[in-house]
Amino acid sequence: MNEHMYAVIMAGGGGTRLWPVSRKDRPKQLLPLLGEETLFQSTVNRLVDVFPLERILVVTVAEQASEMQVQVPSIPLENYLIEPAPRGTASVVGLAAAILRKRDPEAVMAILPSDHFIRNRDLFHYLLRTAFDIASQNYLVTLGITPLHPSTAYGYIQQGASLDGDFNYPAYKVRRFKEKPDEKTAQEFLRSGDHSWNSGMFVWRADAILTEIEKQMPALADALNKISAAWNTSKQDEVIDSLWHDLEVETVDYAVMEKAERVAVMPAGGLGWSDVGAWDSLFDVLFPDMNGNVAVNSQHLALETRNTLMYGNNPDRLIVTIGLDDMVIVDVGDVLLVCKVDQAQKVRDVVEHLKKHRQENYL
Amino acid sequence: MNEHMYAVIMAGGGGTRLWPVSRKDRPKQLLPLLGEETLFQSTVNRLVDVFPLERILVVTVAEQASEMQVQVPSIPLENYLIEPAPRGTASVVGLAAAILRKRDPEAVMAILPSDHFIRNRDLFHYLLRTAFDIASQNYLVTLGITPLHPSTAYGYIQQGASLDGDFNYPAYKVRRFKEKPDEKTAQEFLRSGDHSWNSGMFVWRADAILTEIEKQMPALADALNKISAAWNTSKQDEVIDSLWHDLEVETVDYAVMEKAERVAVMPAGGLGWSDVGAWDSLFDVLFPDMNGNVAVNSQHLALETRNTLMYGNNPDRLIVTIGLDDMVIVDVGDVLLVCKVDQAQKVRDVVEHLKKHRQENYL
Repeated sequence: MNEHMYAVIMAGGGGTRLWPVSRKDRPKQLLPLLGEETLFQSTVNRLVDVFPLERILVVTVAEQASEMQVQVPSIPLENYLIEPAPRGTASVVGLAAAILRKRDPEAVMAILPSDHFIRNRDLFHYLLRTAFDIASQNYLVTLGITPLHPSTAYGYIQQGASLDGDFNYPAYKVRRFKEKPDEKTAQEFLRSGDHSWNSGMFVWRADAILTEIEKQMPALADALNKISAAWNTSKQDEVIDSLWHDLEVETVDYAVMEKAERVAVMPAGGLGWSDVGAWDSLFDVLFPDMNGNVAVNSQHLALETRNTLMYGNNPDRLIVTIGLDDMVIVDVGDVLLVCKVDQAQKVRDVVEHLKKHRQENYL
Repeated sequence: MNEHMYAVIMAGGGGTRLWPVSRKDRPKQLLPLLGEETLFQSTVNRLVDVFPLERILVVTVAEQASEMQVQVPSIPLENYLIEPAPRGTASVVGLAAAILRKRDPEAVMAILPSDHFIRNRDLFHYLLRTAFDIASQNYLVTLGITPLHPSTAYGYIQQGASLDGDFNYPAYKVRRFKEKPDEKTAQEFLRSGDHSWNSGMFVWRADAILTEIEKQMPALADALNKISAAWNTSKQDEVIDSLWHDLEVETVDYAVMEKAERVAVMPAGGLGWSDVGAWDSLFDVLFPDMNGNVAVNSQHLALETRNTLMYGNNPDRLIVTIGLDDMVIVDVGDVLLVCKVDQAQKVRDVVEHLKKHRQENYL
């Protein structure tokens, strides 16, 4: 990698679908959901072989920044960019691009969520390097994930013709970004062979994405110019605070990339990737026993049980299951969740219910 | 009731199918499984309107007697008969009958398990009085339960012709006692209309059952004569200890009543009876909500959940279920059990497994 290449880790959201492990004040990226490291620590650790620490940036909100700095003290403090409030990925990406372009007009940047899991780090590094090569040719590159099943939990990217150029991995022009589909449509996408899951990982030149933002979100571009001008001056906080709250809440995929020129997708298979978005996708990347069962932080005694995840927080606790199929059991101090795997997305409804009924102690 | 009528409560077993609530040193009859009272306390309390305390006897083992005396101090100490070890119901019944006949040659006795639940106490009293009437005519009376579903967890009693005589409730000669059936046979029994569940509740004259024991189990009759002769003498403990361990382990149903003369059954419906033998039968006598769910000692938030029992031991714990049908969830300090209702009998296998693997702390 050359000295113009940067990684930008985005950490904003909460992960309500991983309740009751992910909680209001313990969002999922700060938790060791899949081993010893927290998801945020894993995200940084799979970048350090590729990027020096001074070229790894983190965009987050103030409430999470201090805990992140404790978990990963090796990233320089000035590389933490604090959003005054979450305003969608278009603003986050724009902020990081504007700051980076000011620091290095030749900057090429990877946008990486803080809360994903990738088992195959070598392949990830390989794909990332190839994505930087493609991005250097002024493409906006998205990392797609080859679908393993007809998921309705992800957005999809449909690919078109192969890119011109001699790259080290197959890459295609993007034909369309597609919202989370219904079940029938997801099955069509899977069968089509030309749809990837949208992983939310992107690589592009800072000036290339800013050019697209100028075309398609001129109000955002204008705000970013003012913030960039004030950055590293005494007016930095005042300027960003005054402009940030009026920004439109938009995602970069739909507000910018959907209509952009030169958008590419690399469909990745075999990464062992999960967005760890809900209990079913977390389950996807764990190693099951012969019956498809997994026990995390608990002892499991299984009779007539198949494809069931036991996720505990006490290795002395015995979880016995009899006659279960396709179930997720999450057992923490004050809450027990027992959920059919294919209904894992409904955990969000539970969190909404608890908010509505002011049962704050469980949030 | 007249002064020759006695109640004998039998309390020996453990209730392994109600694990993990019922434990090695906390057998189910000593636990408040269905409310404020323990099952043993309930058993006594539904008798005190019918029997004076001095005519309520308890047969149990030494390990349970002291806790029973704490739970029900009102029963006179001398009414606790201590079995040196459990040797099946034939021995227990015989012991109680022999002691009672010595105390009162005209004694008529009801044999009642300590660990059953009966919701409708008035009907129970009515049936019990009628059973005493029938038993006074030298019948061995069994209380049958009109089946609610084709259970494979109970023995069955097939009825024959109506009894001669003018009794206050329908009663029949017993045609056959039947072991726990397989599913197909249980369905046939249910359809036949002439089969009752064997509740293990019996009423008879002490001398009538002893006469049958003499005919069919002469070795037991011989031992009982010796024990009875030594009872309330200085040799009581020595004699019972020396004879008890050599007794055959038999149930009174099969070893005595199966071949006896004058055996009657009263098929009872509407008692709200359960043997509380396993989680499914306990579930049967709880009051479900509109979706068939019951939450005991826990808060329950149910999405797409039907016919599911949540049995906890902490009212502050939130149990959330999504997409469950016909499930039992038992949540205690060190163990969580999640079990399909129709596999509730397999809890016994779990206990066997834990014994075999010496996981004593969970037993």
